[in-house]
Amino acid sequence: LRKLSGAFSVAQALEAVGETFNSSTSHHGLTHLAGLAQADQQALSFLSDRRYLSEAQASRAGAILVSDSLRAALPASVSERLVTVANPYLSFARISQWIAVQLEAQRESQEGRDLAPRPFGVGAWVHPSARLGQGVQLAPGVVIGAGTVIEDRVRLSAHCVVGRDCTIGADSLLYPHVVIYDDCQLGARAVVHSGTVIGGDGFGFARAQEQWVKIAQLGAVRIAADVEIGSNCSVDRGTLEDTVIEQGCKLDNLIQIAHNVRIGARTVIAACVGIAGSARIGSDCMIGGSVGILGHLDVVDKVTITPMSLVMSGLDKPGVYSGSSPLQAHRDWEKSAALLRNLPDLRSRLRALEALSKKTDQP
Amino acid sequence: LRKLSGAFSVAQALEAVGETFNSSTSHHGLTHLAGLAQADQQALSFLSDRRYLSEAQASRAGAILVSDSLRAALPASVSERLVTVANPYLSFARISQWIAVQLEAQRESQEGRDLAPRPFGVGAWVHPSARLGQGVQLAPGVVIGAGTVIEDRVRLSAHCVVGRDCTIGADSLLYPHVVIYDDCQLGARAVVHSGTVIGGDGFGFARAQEQWVKIAQLGAVRIAADVEIGSNCSVDRGTLEDTVIEQGCKLDNLIQIAHNVRIGARTVIAACVGIAGSARIGSDCMIGGSVGILGHLDVVDKVTITPMSLVMSGLDKPGVYSGSSPLQAHRDWEKSAALLRNLPDLRSRLRALEALSKKTDQP
Amino acid sequence: LRKLSGAFSVAQALEAVGETFNSSTSHHGLTHLAGLAQADQQALSFLSDRRYLSEAQASRAGAILVSDSLRAALPASVSERLVTVANPYLSFARISQWIAVQLEAQRESQEGRDLAPRPFGVGAWVHPSARLGQGVQLAPGVVIGAGTVIEDRVRLSAHCVVGRDCTIGADSLLYPHVVIYDDCQLGARAVVHSGTVIGGDGFGFARAQEQWVKIAQLGAVRIAADVEIGSNCSVDRGTLEDTVIEQGCKLDNLIQIAHNVRIGARTVIAACVGIAGSARIGSDCMIGGSVGILGHLDVVDKVTITPMSLVMSGLDKPGVYSGSSPLQAHRDWEKSAALLRNLPDLRSRLRALEALSKKTDQP
Repeated sequence: LRKLSGAFSVAQALEAVGETFNSSTSHHGLTHLAGLAQADQQALSFLSDRRYLSEAQASRAGAILVSDSLRAALPASVSERLVTVANPYLSFARISQWIAVQLEAQRESQEGRDLAPRPFGVGAWVHPSARLGQGVQLAPGVVIGAGTVIEDRVRLSAHCVVGRDCTIGADSLLYPHVVIYDDCQLGARAVVHSGTVIGGDGFGFARAQEQWVKIAQLGAVRIAADVEIGSNCSVDRGTLEDTVIEQGCKLDNLIQIAHNVRIGARTVIAACVGIAGSARIGSDCMIGGSVGILGHLDVVDKVTITPMSLVMSGLDKPGVYSGSSPLQAHRDWEKSAALLRNLPDLRSRLRALEALSKKTDQP
Repeated sequence: LRKLSGAFSVAQALEAVGETFNSSTSHHGLTHLAGLAQADQQALSFLSDRRYLSEAQASRAGAILVSDSLRAALPASVSERLVTVANPYLSFARISQWIAVQLEAQRESQEGRDLAPRPFGVGAWVHPSARLGQGVQLAPGVVIGAGTVIEDRVRLSAHCVVGRDCTIGADSLLYPHVVIYDDCQLGARAVVHSGTVIGGDGFGFARAQEQWVKIAQLGAVRIAADVEIGSNCSVDRGTLEDTVIEQGCKLDNLIQIAHNVRIGARTVIAACVGIAGSARIGSDCMIGGSVGILGHLDVVDKVTITPMSLVMSGLDKPGVYSGSSPLQAHRDWEKSAALLRNLPDLRSRLRALEALSKKTDQP
Repeated sequence: LRKLSGAFSVAQALEAVGETFNSSTSHHGLTHLAGLAQADQQALSFLSDRRYLSEAQASRAGAILVSDSLRAALPASVSERLVTVANPYLSFARISQWIAVQLEAQRESQEGRDLAPRPFGVGAWVHPSARLGQGVQLAPGVVIGAGTVIEDRVRLSAHCVVGRDCTIGADSLLYPHVVIYDDCQLGARAVVHSGTVIGGDGFGFARAQEQWVKIAQLGAVRIAADVEIGSNCSVDRGTLEDTVIEQGCKLDNLIQIAHNVRIGARTVIAACVGIAGSARIGSDCMIGGSVGILGHLDVVDKVTITPMSLVMSGLDKPGVYSGSSPLQAHRDWEKSAALLRNLPDLRSRLRALEALSKKTDQP
């Protein structure tokens, strides 16, 4: 873990992220963030979950962000190192960003790094009809197609390829090797990680005798502001309308979003999820890892799906849904799996007994 | 959705795709394709499924492709806008391609786009011993290895890397960032989307004391004509023979095809599927999303596997197979999952009752 | 399958890989490796599993590597072609590597290939503060960031991007289009296949009112020696500590390794697996294809998980675990799946019968 070369105080950190510091003690000399168990005296840590109370008590952290309620549960011995905030996890998130910015500046100013500019601005292929905003950074190998608009302060990392007639919103960051096909739109502050492909053809074919005839995918992909997409994801373009990801969604890695899908605002999707064509997912949903969602169905807002579940039909009530199969020692599983296949038989036998017992019961 | 700048008639469209137009009415002034619900008067739509009869009736589409049998089910009020074809979905597919070609031409001819040639033909690294056919297009960053043959009219998009001694069949289109390892062959009219890797090493290691010893993967990948592969797929090279994908297969995104797998003609595979080593899949199969297929087994022709099923042994009869676990409200699932583990106990208790009832029955 | 232009003998092959040849017969004139069923007289094959005894008996292979115990089970008719080794599969693995090296040399020396050097060494962007060891090969489009160390004899294929302050261990091979983010370390002899992304941001966000606030991922990825990673994998950087993959691990394709995960030495992971944040996997584990492992749990050494199982809690005993759902004909599955949901009802009815039978039993 990289540390800041100069130290900071908790007061500095909280003020930098726009929060108020309400503590009598100072907590100076911090250089990095750390988990409660790993922290040393130069580390700022946080406690946001009652389960870690004992870790907080034993922690060597120089300072610990804590809520009022959890503070009350800790002994006096640590109280001097506690700093009360409204939402410790959120403060930690904000401070992590503040530290990341400083680490970046620190890295850039290291000796030898000013011998040459970062290799941005060389070796990119930009079509003359494309329009680049103020402060755009293009790394080597970037390719930008005709008619595309790259808004202010966008950073396109090495070998990013943006097709024709696209828009990349202001302050977006595309990591190396992102591909955006023709006509797609990314909103402001998009973050897209390496290997992700946005706007590839949806999977549509019509059968003719002895072959599949491709259905040209004439729509595109429209992604609203503040969306982050992990690495190696595939977001397909729509067939006759756009595939849409709304404001503030967060997608992990290796996710498949098929053509014509709509995902509501602030929905988060864990890794390895596949969502089939024309599914509509509501806002503020949480989709667990490796979940599958079939096509042409609606999931309402505020639905949580636990990992490796398959959603086979629409869900019209908020709530938590599960469908995975439980893990067992292999020998036990063999028996359960065989019996699962025999459930209809078990039920028939149960029914027979019930019928019999009724007879027996009625003299 | 992009629209054609000039309008077309249904007669024009059908004739362009080689179908006959048998209607008395004309249906001029169309500019795009649309679904029944989204269509306006400039849109051509289609009805291929009885479930959408009411949508067709309410549709504002300028013209609707329909089969004879579905036409009969629609009221006279819309009949003027109906155009009978043998297979509406297939006609729609063909017309979508016809429109895509025109949209492409239209885009290329836009003002400003002729200021400079498309950036093809610059910045590619081609080994002198590679052979390029007529009309091949190479985008920036393309790398082609020694001894490779790129047949006529192939388009290699930005940063595609083709290894040594490969063949890319005529009229193929590789989107940006496709990687083809040494010795692999793609047939004519292949379409491969971004981020897909063809010919990476199969996963083979032998155990020696405290380490795994790699088995060199000496085979390659052989893909027949008319195959389309989506984005971010991995198709591994064979160990001692080739991994083979036969004519007309269609693969969606994020699919794993392990070494030595053979996939029969026209089989379609949905996203996130994994097929393990040396599996042989028949022709005309349909593999649902997130399915897993274990290695060293045979699946016959015309098998359909529904999403998120695991194929653990060979399938020797055509038909539809399923193995996913049903979705439930989380609380209900907790009970079912616990009981699933206790199925052997339930069966024992059932047996005990059956034994008892026999005794009771026989005086 | 490519063959050697010059022939070899079994004695040569075994000596080349450091094994002793203990046979009276010679077995000359071999040009390639092949499976028992596909082999011809120029092929060297192997028998390492009793199930293939009859294939060995029928094989046309010029020579067959075999263990003492399996040799005894074969008839005299083939004994002349058998060569006894301690571990036939391991000898086969080693010889496969020996042949691969020769095929590579053979390919490079083909006529026309010396017209020009391989395109290495041109078109790479290397920051002046990066340090390159002896014999490093850089293909076109390689980008190397400030402060990064590329050790001796590393080969970076086309368009590989290595960030700032990374280390790539000696003799590593990165195939085209690998991306390594800032600060990551790969040990000696790493092999990483195309499209794999190492060091992307872990998936961490804190909720604030109507948005998700990103948690900067300040850790990195540390990969020990002798690790191979397949194509299109995503290995995320840690939040406050490093994501760690220990010595000798082998990962297949399309695998997700989330932030802060630790994977013990020599563990092998099949394709399409997802491992969630902060999971710790032991050494010498074998994780089957499409398995999911939830976060914040421990799996001990020597655990095997069969394909498509979900690990929902820690595993503290070595052994084989399963959790997939069995495949059935779709009609049967419909019944079983419905009954699975009704298991609580089945159990209640069973309990009622048990209560009744107790009453009946006790006069």
